[in-house]
Amino acid sequence: MYMDHSATSPVDPEVFEAMKPYFVDNFGNASTLYSLGRDARKAMEAAREQVASLIGAKPEEVIFTSGGTESDNIAIKGTVYRLKNKGNHIITSAIEHPAVRETCKYLEKNGFEVTYLPVYEDGIVKISDLEDAITDKTILITIMHANNEIGTIQPIAEIGKIARENKIYFHTDAVQTVGKIPVNVEKMNVDMLSLSAHKVYGPKGIGALYVKKGVRLEPIIHGGGHEKGLRPGTENVSGIVGLGKACELAEKNLLEDTKYITNLRDKLIDGILNSIEQSYLDGHRTKRLPNNVNLRFTGIEGESLVLHLDSKGVAASTGSACSSKSLEPSHVLIALGLEHVEAHGSLRLTLGKENTEEEVDYVITAVKEVVETLRKLSPLWCEIPGAERRE
Amino acid sequence: MYMDHSATSPVDPEVFEAMKPYFVDNFGNASTLYSLGRDARKAMEAAREQVASLIGAKPEEVIFTSGGTESDNIAIKGTVYRLKNKGNHIITSAIEHPAVRETCKYLEKNGFEVTYLPVYEDGIVKISDLEDAITDKTILITIMHANNEIGTIQPIAEIGKIARENKIYFHTDAVQTVGKIPVNVEKMNVDMLSLSAHKVYGPKGIGALYVKKGVRLEPIIHGGGHEKGLRPGTENVSGIVGLGKACELAEKNLLEDTKYITNLRDKLIDGILNSIEQSYLDGHRTKRLPNNVNLRFTGIEGESLVLHLDSKGVAASTGSACSSKSLEPSHVLIALGLEHVEAHGSLRLTLGKENTEEEVDYVITAVKEVVETLRKLSPLWCEIPGAERRE
Repeated sequence: MYMDHSATSPVDPEVFEAMKPYFVDNFGNASTLYSLGRDARKAMEAAREQVASLIGAKPEEVIFTSGGTESDNIAIKGTVYRLKNKGNHIITSAIEHPAVRETCKYLEKNGFEVTYLPVYEDGIVKISDLEDAITDKTILITIMHANNEIGTIQPIAEIGKIARENKIYFHTDAVQTVGKIPVNVEKMNVDMLSLSAHKVYGPKGIGALYVKKGVRLEPIIHGGGHEKGLRPGTENVSGIVGLGKACELAEKNLLEDTKYITNLRDKLIDGILNSIEQSYLDGHRTKRLPNNVNLRFTGIEGESLVLHLDSKGVAASTGSACSSKSLEPSHVLIALGLEHVEAHGSLRLTLGKENTEEEVDYVITAVKEVVETLRKLSPLWCEIPGAERRE
Repeated sequence: MYMDHSATSPVDPEVFEAMKPYFVDNFGNASTLYSLGRDARKAMEAAREQVASLIGAKPEEVIFTSGGTESDNIAIKGTVYRLKNKGNHIITSAIEHPAVRETCKYLEKNGFEVTYLPVYEDGIVKISDLEDAITDKTILITIMHANNEIGTIQPIAEIGKIARENKIYFHTDAVQTVGKIPVNVEKMNVDMLSLSAHKVYGPKGIGALYVKKGVRLEPIIHGGGHEKGLRPGTENVSGIVGLGKACELAEKNLLEDTKYITNLRDKLIDGILNSIEQSYLDGHRTKRLPNNVNLRFTGIEGESLVLHLDSKGVAASTGSACSSKSLEPSHVLIALGLEHVEAHGSLRLTLGKENTEEEVDYVITAVKEVVETLRKLSPLWCEIPGAERRE
C-alpha cells in the first residue's frame, strides 16, 4: 500500500480521463491560429480558471510551469534579479524544500545575503525572529506553507502581513498544501505561490506559479512569449488540463477528504506511538498537514526501515524523495534540534484519499514488526535495551 | 488536415500506449527507494537509452528537461555562466529559434557579447563568416541544426570541427531534426544538443539535452539533485517514457518516413509553385528538412492565408508557432534579405508521416483558391496585377 503521497500521488482516473483527448487527437499547439490550436488554448485557459479558483486567485495571475521546483526558482530568482538594485537580502526558513534552499544557497554565492530563520522543536518559525531579521536591504521573504518532511504548517498569513507592512515581496512554496488544506492567496497575503500537480493526483511535469497582479518578475528561461514571457516553451496542454482537473477535484472534495485523511493520520500516529516503545513524532502534533506522519524510533536507521517496509508491501520514505539519494541527514530534522543519528532515523508516512483504515492497521503492525526485527539486529539498541536514548 | 508538424505533432498511439501505465498505476516517484519508485526509475533509464540510441550518444550523456526551450537555456546559460571568467563572446546565427535568440539577447544585456552570423538567400551560414567571428574571448557557438521556419539545414559537422579546433564549446538546437533526419552527436562534433518530444510524435512538456561526457554546465534551476543536479524537480516519468518510445519509433522508421515525407514535400512545393503565379519558396531547395515547405505569394498577408486555410480544414502556420502572437515580421525571413511586407506573407506547411498524397493534392488546390480569393481583395495585388513585385 502506498503511504508516500508527499513524494507523489497517483493520477486520479478522472484527471487522466480529462487529459486523454490532448495526446493523440486534440494535440494542437496552443500558440497557433487555427481551430486545433484554439481548442488547445481554450482547454488551457479553462484549466487556468480551475487552478485560480482553488487558490482564490484571478486566472491571469496563474502561470504554468514544469513543476514546483521551477515555480520556486522563477519566484525567487525572478524577484531578486529584478530588485537587485534595491537590496540584496532574502529571508527564508531553515527547513525549506531543496528547490528553495538550494536556490538561496546559489544566490548566496552570487552576491545575495540570506537569513535562514530557525524553527523550534515544533518545526515552526517565530514571527519575532522574522521581524528581527528584516533590514532595509530585504527584498524577498520565501517561507514554505507546510513542510514536505514533517508537515508542519507555518503562520503564512501573519508572515505575509509583516511582509506587506514592510513592502517586501513574499513567496510561499505551497506544493504540499494546495489541495490538502485551504489555500487562499488573498487571505494568506502572498505575492507568489508555488504549486505542483503531481502532489494532488495530477500528472508529473506540470505546476503553476501564482503571481499577484502588478508583481513583475524577471524570467529565468528565455524564448517565445508563452505565459506572458515568464515561462516560454510550447505549452504542455495535456499536463495543464490534468493540473486543472486535479485542482477542480481537490476544491470539490477538500473538506471531506481532509476530514477523512486527518482521521487516518491520527489513528496512525496514535497506533504507532502507543504500540512501539521509544517512538517519537517529529513536528507539531496538530499544526501539521492532515496527511503527514513523521516518526523516529530509537536505534533504528530510516533507510533500513523503508526497505523492510517495502518488502511488506508498504511504500514509505525517510525524509523527502528529493533528498533521498543524499547521505546527508535531513536538514529539516537537524533544524528541529535533533542529533545526526536521530535525523537519519526518520520514517515519513504520508496518506492519501485512497488509503483505508484497514491499511492503516496493517501499517501499524508492519512498522511494529520491522522495528522489532531491526532493533534485534541493532548494536545501538542492544547496548542499551529498553533505555531511553534521547536527551 | 494537419500540415503544421513543426509546431507540434500528435502523440503516436504507440507512444501513448507506452506512457499510459505511468499515470494511474505505475505512478512512483523515480527518486524513491521502494519498488514502485524503482520501477519508475527503471522505465526512465530505459527511455534514456532510447533517446541516446537515436542520437548516437551514451545514456549518461542525456539529461531530461521540460522541452526544447529549457534545453537551449541550460546549454547556453550553463556554458557561459561557467566560463565567464574565460571569455564573454558567443557566436550564433541570425535565424535561431526564440529559445536561443532571446537567451542570447538576454545575455547581451548582462555582460556578454553576441555575434549573429548572417545567412544568405539560401538560409545557410557561411563557414568563412564563422571563422572570421571567432576571437580569443569566444566561449560558445550555438547554431541550430535546421531552421524551424524555413527548414534549411546548417553544416553542423563542419561548424563543430571548427569549434573543436578552436576549443570552443558547441551547442546545436536540433529540435526540428531529431527523428526527421539522421542525427549523430559524434559525427556532428557537438558538445550539447537540444531535442524535444512533441516534435516527433511524443508528448509536450518533455525534452532532453545531450551533454557530452566531460562538459560541465552550471544549472539554471536549483533544487534536489535530479538529473545530476542539472535539472532538479520530480522526474516526469510518463513524459520521459513517451519521449523514449517516440525516439525508438523514430529510429526504427527514420529512413522510410523520410523518403515518404520528402516525396510529399516535393509534390507540394512543385504543385504550388507551378499552379500559382508569383509564388516563391523560402530557403534552400534541397538542403532543407524533408517535411518543410515555406512559401510566399505576392500581395498576400500570411495570417489571412492561415485563417482561410483553416476554414477549409487545413492547419498551417505563418512562421513559427512560438512567434505567432507577435506582430513583428519573421526575423528568419528578414535575415534571408526579404522586405518587411514579404516577410509578413509567408505560409509554412510542415508535413508528417500521417499525411497522404491525397491531402497534398487537396492542400495545393486549397492554397490556390485562397490565394486567388485574397488577391481579389488585396489592394497591393490590384495595384500591380500580374506584376513581379520582388526585386
